[in-house]
Amino acid sequence: MKPIVQFLKKNPLSVLLVALPLIVVGQSLGWSPAAIFALSSIGIIPMASFIGKATEDLATHTGPQMGALLNATLGNAAELIITITAVRAGLLQLVLASITGSIIGNLLLVLGLSMVVGGVRHGLQKFDKATASRNAILLVLAVIALAIPSVFSVSMGVPPLTVTEAGHSPIEALSLGVAVIMLVLYALGLFDAARTARAAGSQHSPISVTLPASEAPNWAIWKAIAILTLSTGGVVWLSEALVHVAQEVIVSVGISEFFLGIILVPLIGNVAEHLVAVQVAAKNKMDLSTEIAVSSSIQIALFVAPLLVFISLLLGHPLQLIFNQFELLALMAAVVIAVLVSNDGESTWLEGAALLGIYLILGMAFFVLP
Amino acid sequence: MKPIVQFLKKNPLSVLLVALPLIVVGQSLGWSPAAIFALSSIGIIPMASFIGKATEDLATHTGPQMGALLNATLGNAAELIITITAVRAGLLQLVLASITGSIIGNLLLVLGLSMVVGGVRHGLQKFDKATASRNAILLVLAVIALAIPSVFSVSMGVPPLTVTEAGHSPIEALSLGVAVIMLVLYALGLFDAARTARAAGSQHSPISVTLPASEAPNWAIWKAIAILTLSTGGVVWLSEALVHVAQEVIVSVGISEFFLGIILVPLIGNVAEHLVAVQVAAKNKMDLSTEIAVSSSIQIALFVAPLLVFISLLLGHPLQLIFNQFELLALMAAVVIAVLVSNDGESTWLEGAALLGIYLILGMAFFVLP
Amino acid sequence: MKPIVQFLKKNPLSVLLVALPLIVVGQSLGWSPAAIFALSSIGIIPMASFIGKATEDLATHTGPQMGALLNATLGNAAELIITITAVRAGLLQLVLASITGSIIGNLLLVLGLSMVVGGVRHGLQKFDKATASRNAILLVLAVIALAIPSVFSVSMGVPPLTVTEAGHSPIEALSLGVAVIMLVLYALGLFDAARTARAAGSQHSPISVTLPASEAPNWAIWKAIAILTLSTGGVVWLSEALVHVAQEVIVSVGISEFFLGIILVPLIGNVAEHLVAVQVAAKNKMDLSTEIAVSSSIQIALFVAPLLVFISLLLGHPLQLIFNQFELLALMAAVVIAVLVSNDGESTWLEGAALLGIYLILGMAFFVLP
Repeated sequence: MKPIVQFLKKNPLSVLLVALPLIVVGQSLGWSPAAIFALSSIGIIPMASFIGKATEDLATHTGPQMGALLNATLGNAAELIITITAVRAGLLQLVLASITGSIIGNLLLVLGLSMVVGGVRHGLQKFDKATASRNAILLVLAVIALAIPSVFSVSMGVPPLTVTEAGHSPIEALSLGVAVIMLVLYALGLFDAARTARAAGSQHSPISVTLPASEAPNWAIWKAIAILTLSTGGVVWLSEALVHVAQEVIVSVGISEFFLGIILVPLIGNVAEHLVAVQVAAKNKMDLSTEIAVSSSIQIALFVAPLLVFISLLLGHPLQLIFNQFELLALMAAVVIAVLVSNDGESTWLEGAALLGIYLILGMAFFVLP
Repeated sequence: MKPIVQFLKKNPLSVLLVALPLIVVGQSLGWSPAAIFALSSIGIIPMASFIGKATEDLATHTGPQMGALLNATLGNAAELIITITAVRAGLLQLVLASITGSIIGNLLLVLGLSMVVGGVRHGLQKFDKATASRNAILLVLAVIALAIPSVFSVSMGVPPLTVTEAGHSPIEALSLGVAVIMLVLYALGLFDAARTARAAGSQHSPISVTLPASEAPNWAIWKAIAILTLSTGGVVWLSEALVHVAQEVIVSVGISEFFLGIILVPLIGNVAEHLVAVQVAAKNKMDLSTEIAVSSSIQIALFVAPLLVFISLLLGHPLQLIFNQFELLALMAAVVIAVLVSNDGESTWLEGAALLGIYLILGMAFFVLP
Repeated sequence: MKPIVQFLKKNPLSVLLVALPLIVVGQSLGWSPAAIFALSSIGIIPMASFIGKATEDLATHTGPQMGALLNATLGNAAELIITITAVRAGLLQLVLASITGSIIGNLLLVLGLSMVVGGVRHGLQKFDKATASRNAILLVLAVIALAIPSVFSVSMGVPPLTVTEAGHSPIEALSLGVAVIMLVLYALGLFDAARTARAAGSQHSPISVTLPASEAPNWAIWKAIAILTLSTGGVVWLSEALVHVAQEVIVSVGISEFFLGIILVPLIGNVAEHLVAVQVAAKNKMDLSTEIAVSSSIQIALFVAPLLVFISLLLGHPLQLIFNQFELLALMAAVVIAVLVSNDGESTWLEGAALLGIYLILGMAFFVLP
């Protein structure tokens, strides 16, 4: 028992792994979809955490350049797997909502919690304005680019479709064009991340945040690769289970596909990462905390979203980057807030509370949406 | 005569008290609604000024903590009384317009005038960037929270209702939820203000600005309480008179309820405070000037607006926080401008002139609205 | 041959003057409209460059005050001539589009290219935050003022007219009122520019950027005046040729009047100026580079646009400042980006690439518009 207790002390989230056997039992005993959904969600949390830790650990083995690349591509692996599974199931509205939800979750919920926890402990917290500002600029540019086809689609009076059948509309072409440009920008960002990592410390790339070595689990390289493979496989399996019952949960529990996508899915995929951001804020490392939140958002906008456009084409469920007006509104708020937070260079618990307040208001609004 | 002359020198606005007897005369002689409206408006100005001075004076007696609370709650007393009177008369569109008008008046007219007056006298003026920035962030968050139900209501195709009969719509629930969250944030802000006040100087709370002691009138405490009571009663009476004829003025003079609410009412309720902001700018205390304007706006958004939601429920004229598109546009402009002004830390008369220009353009636009 | 070679080395753009005789030939031989359009465009580029150089040179002769005025009024002379010609031809949609295109071209294309070229050569580039910030504030205020009538017109459900027949609508009155206020602000800006120029160096006025003397061509005053007169006449002639065939080009090549106005016309009129901005960025003078882009945008918003409103009235083709939703969207993006760039005080090639990416996405979107 003792090593297990020690392991759980180091990795308290692992206790949630108990959900895995329960899912198998539940599936064979025909438990309710809501129960399977909840268990799969709970199971994904420690798996995503292991992916994150294995990535961090591999990064320490591979040197800063390769490490930066690893963090930049695997940083949102759990989220990417869940959304690809949803694309295969044709839940395109859920996918778009969860892209939006991931960005606003990082910028409102995570930053808000970090500022409250950090601010209550340490009072006024300061962070490096120049770095935060540079990262925020890229985030804002990424979100503006992401939003352009949607705004055009709204202005042109095209109904806010999320699912589109064949028929090559101008908006579909635009959507693909935007995806190409974003991936090019992301590749440039990767190049910059690798270069920056080689040059100095590795924390200052806007799309790849490397945790300090002391935060890495210090595993042997084969162990890290094994854990990465296993936990990735686990997330794939759990995502299947989750998406499989999603449709039924929507009907039985009475929440919308939209609410599921914009609030619940991003939480499930990112809880582990969110916890890290809050923990470092509690240690008064507000720099690192804001970088995690902002760079994760940039990755979603510049990498996950356009990648999903191409993967969805291959999977026969073409996804257009046409967000609805509520998603656009939430993204615009995120833009404004990212600018504010970065240009300030300071945070207080009251600001954090205001961010949480806005997340709550948005959540209520998304919930009452018909 | 001499003490009266001295009193008028110290309190030049008091000369407007001459409107009070004229209203009584006018009401009994049946003067035109426009005349009664104008006289009531003129009468409110010195009354609001006395409320402000009595509050400042009480704050010096009660110590910084209680003083911060007083300033935070009584800072917009006159405006609150006028709008409650309007709610009772069912003029809900006027109430929403005056909430908006108060925020844009503070951020465009007052800041603009302050920058012009201060800039012409002192050239480039600087103010503490960090404080201004923190205050502006809270303002922006408050305004975004305030705007969310409206934007959702617009996007959902719900007609931009301002008056709603029973029938519990999702937007009505959202409106109440937002009001609760805002009051919680305001209570947290009060707590922070009291704590900050105890800790050091008292000027740095985003929702409560205490003028330097030299600006307080230095009255005995009973005198301050008496003046506060009398002038509050006076504002109540004058608001009744003003709102009573408002409907007729709209018809006879040919301006809209909307224009009345967004330009005239906020001016009437805030002239005294506005003058203080401009005066301190003229003395090159740009810090204090921007704090007065910004914290007054935060109070309107976080305290006056949600309070009116609840009071209007009790009064049987439920007010929803659904602003129309013109109000949203004006609020958005205010958001952008608040960020700019705060992040800059500098002001010139040319910037002030541009702010006044935008206020003028908005005023023209509101005036030509059908 | 040798002096010609030397001249071309100093003024490489002059090689494009070869387009002038070709236009004459083409017009008499009846070449296709597309060919005449391309040749006129090519011919305007060196002409606009000469206007710019002659203005810079005159500024060195006239002293800083008069020089600031010259730069502020003649800075966008080529653009003004082209748009006036278009107004005379009744191409009002093209005019509004080119006002927008000029602003977004300066803020996305020029700043983007400057940051990429400068960043690749010099790494992280810094510029004076305070000046950049003050200039950006005026830009944002100018663009907000410019956008207000359009947003009101959209909100009021008035169809997004660009051409309006008599019938004095409220929006027409508003449009004229806005034009008056903007010209007043511009006059105040000129006054400020002249005063600033006298006081110190002359580079810090937000509406008038004077290049360092070393960049001026050092011509005799009569030569500068002669070149200014000749090149202005040349632009007038070429604009006539260009606008004359524009309608046919739209039909034959299959691009829209809107795309012509928002992408091509601003490029043609500003290439010379754009090159200067990029060249100084390459020399690591990022201060000057951003000032050129921002002050040129302010001039367009505060001077060219309102002037066109009045000139169009005189020419019998009244132009209203009613931009369509795509133009508003692009202007909003420009607002956000101007704030970001200025508040940062730093630029990297990755930021520049992101700006270019957004310009490209907007260009694609404008192109696919029906």
